[in-house]
Amino acid sequence: MAPLPAAAACHAPEDAPPPLPRNAPGSRLAGALAPASIAVLGASDNPHKAGGRPIAFMRQYGFQGRVYPVNPARAEVQGLRSYASLAELPEVPELVIVAVGGAEGLRLVEQCAAAGVGTVVVVASGYAEAGAEGEALQARMVAACRAGGTRLVGPNCQGLANFSNGSIANFSTIFHEQPGRDGPLAIIGQSGATTQAVYALAQARGIHARYVHATGNEADVTAAELLLETVEDTEVRAVLLYVEALSDPETLACAAARAAERGIAVIGVKSGRTANGQRAASSHTGAMATEDRVIDAFFERHNIIRAVDPYEAVSVAALCIGTPLPQGNNLVVMSNSGASCVMGADTADELGMPLLPFGPDTARQLAQVMPAFSSASNPIDLTGALLTDRALFPGVLDVLSGVEDIHLLMVSFPVAGSGYDVEGYADALARFAAGRRIALAVSAYQEPVREAFSRRGLVVFGREREALQALQTYAAHAERRRRLAARPVAAPQPVPGPPAIAGTLDEAQSLQYLRDAGLETIPFALCRDAGAAVEAAARLGGPVVLKGCSPDILHKSEHGLVALGLETPEQIREAASRHAETIRTLGARYSGALVARMLKGGRELALGARLDPVFGPVVLVGDGGIYLEALRDFRLLVPPFTEADVAEALARLRIAPLLGGLRGEPPADVAAFCRMAARLGEVMSRAEGRIASADINPVKVMAAGQGAYALDAVIELAAGEPPGR
Amino acid sequence: MAPLPAAAACHAPEDAPPPLPRNAPGSRLAGALAPASIAVLGASDNPHKAGGRPIAFMRQYGFQGRVYPVNPARAEVQGLRSYASLAELPEVPELVIVAVGGAEGLRLVEQCAAAGVGTVVVVASGYAEAGAEGEALQARMVAACRAGGTRLVGPNCQGLANFSNGSIANFSTIFHEQPGRDGPLAIIGQSGATTQAVYALAQARGIHARYVHATGNEADVTAAELLLETVEDTEVRAVLLYVEALSDPETLACAAARAAERGIAVIGVKSGRTANGQRAASSHTGAMATEDRVIDAFFERHNIIRAVDPYEAVSVAALCIGTPLPQGNNLVVMSNSGASCVMGADTADELGMPLLPFGPDTARQLAQVMPAFSSASNPIDLTGALLTDRALFPGVLDVLSGVEDIHLLMVSFPVAGSGYDVEGYADALARFAAGRRIALAVSAYQEPVREAFSRRGLVVFGREREALQALQTYAAHAERRRRLAARPVAAPQPVPGPPAIAGTLDEAQSLQYLRDAGLETIPFALCRDAGAAVEAAARLGGPVVLKGCSPDILHKSEHGLVALGLETPEQIREAASRHAETIRTLGARYSGALVARMLKGGRELALGARLDPVFGPVVLVGDGGIYLEALRDFRLLVPPFTEADVAEALARLRIAPLLGGLRGEPPADVAAFCRMAARLGEVMSRAEGRIASADINPVKVMAAGQGAYALDAVIELAAGEPPGR
Repeated sequence: MAPLPAAAACHAPEDAPPPLPRNAPGSRLAGALAPASIAVLGASDNPHKAGGRPIAFMRQYGFQGRVYPVNPARAEVQGLRSYASLAELPEVPELVIVAVGGAEGLRLVEQCAAAGVGTVVVVASGYAEAGAEGEALQARMVAACRAGGTRLVGPNCQGLANFSNGSIANFSTIFHEQPGRDGPLAIIGQSGATTQAVYALAQARGIHARYVHATGNEADVTAAELLLETVEDTEVRAVLLYVEALSDPETLACAAARAAERGIAVIGVKSGRTANGQRAASSHTGAMATEDRVIDAFFERHNIIRAVDPYEAVSVAALCIGTPLPQGNNLVVMSNSGASCVMGADTADELGMPLLPFGPDTARQLAQVMPAFSSASNPIDLTGALLTDRALFPGVLDVLSGVEDIHLLMVSFPVAGSGYDVEGYADALARFAAGRRIALAVSAYQEPVREAFSRRGLVVFGREREALQALQTYAAHAERRRRLAARPVAAPQPVPGPPAIAGTLDEAQSLQYLRDAGLETIPFALCRDAGAAVEAAARLGGPVVLKGCSPDILHKSEHGLVALGLETPEQIREAASRHAETIRTLGARYSGALVARMLKGGRELALGARLDPVFGPVVLVGDGGIYLEALRDFRLLVPPFTEADVAEALARLRIAPLLGGLRGEPPADVAAFCRMAARLGEVMSRAEGRIASADINPVKVMAAGQGAYALDAVIELAAGEPPGR
Repeated sequence: MAPLPAAAACHAPEDAPPPLPRNAPGSRLAGALAPASIAVLGASDNPHKAGGRPIAFMRQYGFQGRVYPVNPARAEVQGLRSYASLAELPEVPELVIVAVGGAEGLRLVEQCAAAGVGTVVVVASGYAEAGAEGEALQARMVAACRAGGTRLVGPNCQGLANFSNGSIANFSTIFHEQPGRDGPLAIIGQSGATTQAVYALAQARGIHARYVHATGNEADVTAAELLLETVEDTEVRAVLLYVEALSDPETLACAAARAAERGIAVIGVKSGRTANGQRAASSHTGAMATEDRVIDAFFERHNIIRAVDPYEAVSVAALCIGTPLPQGNNLVVMSNSGASCVMGADTADELGMPLLPFGPDTARQLAQVMPAFSSASNPIDLTGALLTDRALFPGVLDVLSGVEDIHLLMVSFPVAGSGYDVEGYADALARFAAGRRIALAVSAYQEPVREAFSRRGLVVFGREREALQALQTYAAHAERRRRLAARPVAAPQPVPGPPAIAGTLDEAQSLQYLRDAGLETIPFALCRDAGAAVEAAARLGGPVVLKGCSPDILHKSEHGLVALGLETPEQIREAASRHAETIRTLGARYSGALVARMLKGGRELALGARLDPVFGPVVLVGDGGIYLEALRDFRLLVPPFTEADVAEALARLRIAPLLGGLRGEPPADVAAFCRMAARLGEVMSRAEGRIASADINPVKVMAAGQGAYALDAVIELAAGEPPGR
């Protein structure tokens, strides 16, 4: 039995938990984003210093609330009256920015908490990121805030920015370089440098951000909490989230569900994906390692688009903001370069995007507007004739207007300029796009060409491949949104409680528990002695397998405790005695002889589950057998999930082609395996942390209609209370 | 026996063929790039028309030769005297541009050929790309040129451009938009739009191209021939090649060898990689389909960097041109953003680039210049302290100056601007880079930040991931260049000629031929009757396998012609008679009973070879068994290759982890398999097309030191003459 690959840290998110009420006690984050008054402790007259920047920004971006600089050394700061201390202010500010670090910073936070300040944003550093001493200061900061009912953002963070009201409790230098403007994007991250980088990348695409929040050490307020707040804002169309550690998946799940309801796309970059990345993350923010595929599974379950880096995230966000949600993934590619058509077709194939075939009517209509030698197929090669024939591009678009089932359109002009009617093409394309539910991306290598399309509100890319990848991601997101929305709410089946034993169940106990819980197992019997084994074999029929059963021995075959294909009573007696003797010699407990029917044919898959310390139950489906760990041909699923989700996961295995039946073999009973896996997901969720892990490897999947059976199983029970609930 | 995946078209390139002499008869391409006189047939006064652009360009770019516009309707064209016909010119021009299409174009080309013009560049279209009629015209064009000793570029092409001497026989509109400037890049492609796109992309990076050649229909001159010419130019540092079809791999191999000698990087984009892409390519340029992995293998064999699209190609070219060839792949990543360090470590892991660990001395020195709370490890997190500490960045670079074995360095400033001493960082980094053999890439999302580094000659990227991918590609290219240069020239072993039979050899003949050729096979004997089989089994010892042998039956097991684990004479006799009877019933020829020893243990790999109609012999190594086609876990190699090349290919299989020995299994005798595969490569090369294919599946690879044995084999012989030689 191959152990599942190690997974790391959390609790189980339940299906679409109800969104937390806005402004619920303990939340108070709405106030943090629209405070009536803001004080800056450690205020600086220099608008380029940490304590000066937020004041300068609030003036620049027209914050209408009251701003109180606090600096005992000055009477005035940036033209505003400066106060000597928090106590001297005419009111208790709703939000306080603390730009003073170390022990003094702690003292100021304690004052804030005692005074009943709603939110403290500690932009100063010298806390958990700076070693044990800083960590102790940070812990005291948190304790003070908890006691005072104050929410703490940071420390060691860039802070919160809201460009809709000019409330910029954030000292990011980029707001000097590239002035902010209210827009449909929200940027939330643990890293200040990354939120700034995303902000700059988005602006370079003409996308502006309403919110830019960086949470730094996340001693209290997390990025997920801010996300939950942000998705309540109806003007936000997409949120870009950067995280190195996910400590509160339940909040994130809740925010994602709310985002889906409101049609807001959430795009997440979770770094620390690899061993070295996790090492680096741990030295950056002390992030805990989590098996990266758990993150994949969690994001997928909650339809958070996972981007590999800020660049890709912004590229996808541009589509989510700028073009309609696609209703499918039928793609049309068009270019004035035949080579771009070839490369576009290559990329579409590679990404699994179907190029919509044109019917004879469409082909005939296209042939009428296109040059004689062009092929009027998809991709549409406009050829060099685009240069001379002004009617060509609008003509082709007219034909496409009549084609149903185009969901995605990529138009590429790899070369254009003098002689090309770029403005005319952009006009025609903008007219075509208006009111049509087609996700549309334009690609051009030349900046002025991109600019012509972008000026008309079309989404542009500097690389065809990037445009197609973004379209594919967007279409998959849309598809998943539909699937999650249409998900039937199945009445939960009752699940028997696991045996009241701590530790590892033996194979017979494990199989029995699974069978009781509704997973099909191989017919088997646990026999106390050789005689009972012979009787059981006769009852089961056919050749049998006999295994020496002990809760203390996981790898039976390594100890010679598996005897296959036994037919005669003598063979069975001999094996049973030998196994009992071996187990006694090993000093292990002997549970008996497990006799099971042998199944001929079929294919072996692996099914497993584990409690991730952060994410709770995670279910594995994969290629079965002893090489699970070595070949890693598996996918993870986060409950609750459906049989269709399992089928989709199986379809993405490398061995997927084998399940359909090959070389005269019958297709496998994938449906039976999917039922079993979905049931295991329910079992894990309802066991509330009592089942630490379940390894069912192999599951024998027979020919279609003939079922799937657990052949072997090891269940490990958690000691004590369910963790993290 | 699983048939190898279908491979398509060519002849075998031999190891580093001697470069063709420059200006060899039949070549004459050097003249095409530096002609003393150029005529334009169909010359236009309008500098924005095809017949006008080259004239305008030659004036703009200072062509010093003689330019003759030919247009019977005008006395003057763009201020130059216009001639009525070719015959009226004062001399036979060295190069003629034909801007008149169709039948009239053919007539003009015929005149040129008759007059002894060296090179004709037909920029006009209406030929093979336009249907059967155009194809016939093109064929006559080729015939006329062959007869006259004239080289033909195109038709339907953008033509040739040389910015070192202003000889612009090319009508690309982009030279109007973005003026050309002599530089270290050469751009050669079949697609005019793509060469222009690459030109624009390169210029956007500040890289200028000396040559921009687009060959269109390639009726005569191919992109590979132009490459061969270009790599003779000592000022060219990198060549970017775009092809949809490769018709002359020998020329390409020869050019690649010459490029390697001269230290010129060749970066190829071969599109039509997928089924849809090949369909699109075939409608674009009539390109023939080639199994894409053959292209991979061929490029790899000749160290042509394969880029997925023009964007990636330019990105890699920037490094090849702008920074030294790395001596290894030890990477250092540095950033002022901890998140960028995390993501950099992730990407490095993903790409298999080792992050160089710092020794204690380096760590101590780094700790002295870095903030107290930073970790002084690789990636180097400069932290926000970069803003305030001017000595930090130069200080870290000083420490790195003393570290040996840094081969690759990526420095990222995801955010910088006011307050950041960007000019100072750029100065410090340029000083560090000067004279150091480190491949260095800088990444910044903000254009002005990139510009500061780029201005000092450093190679910049707009995305960290792109920078790291380019560094990885560059390091792999450098490594392969060293390996190919150090390759021992092995004395070729004699190879027995294949049997003088046409068609498929039976298993016994196939195994015997392989054994004679020096590949180890399972001990076997072909026996005429059951009695002989019993004797052979006794001689071979142990349980045996018995197979009914016929050249007419490929899939023995499907006909019940394989009997495993036979031990007694009775079993052997029974199986032999049954097989003989089955074969007779099937109406097939009976070659006898093949008796072979059964090997216990080991792992099954697949070995195969096929004659590709374009590329000649191609050898396959992969996961063995019946799922070769379905799971496609194989790599291809183009002979000649070494055992080390085979080992490298095996290491890239998905099942590679299994070969090292897992779960107590011994490691496999990979070396024996590599010997066998290398030998098969020799056999295929020396058989000169006589062996159409060889499928050796499975090869049983025993524990290390215990050999690898062909268990089954089917060799198919080609009829008649060796193809294409």
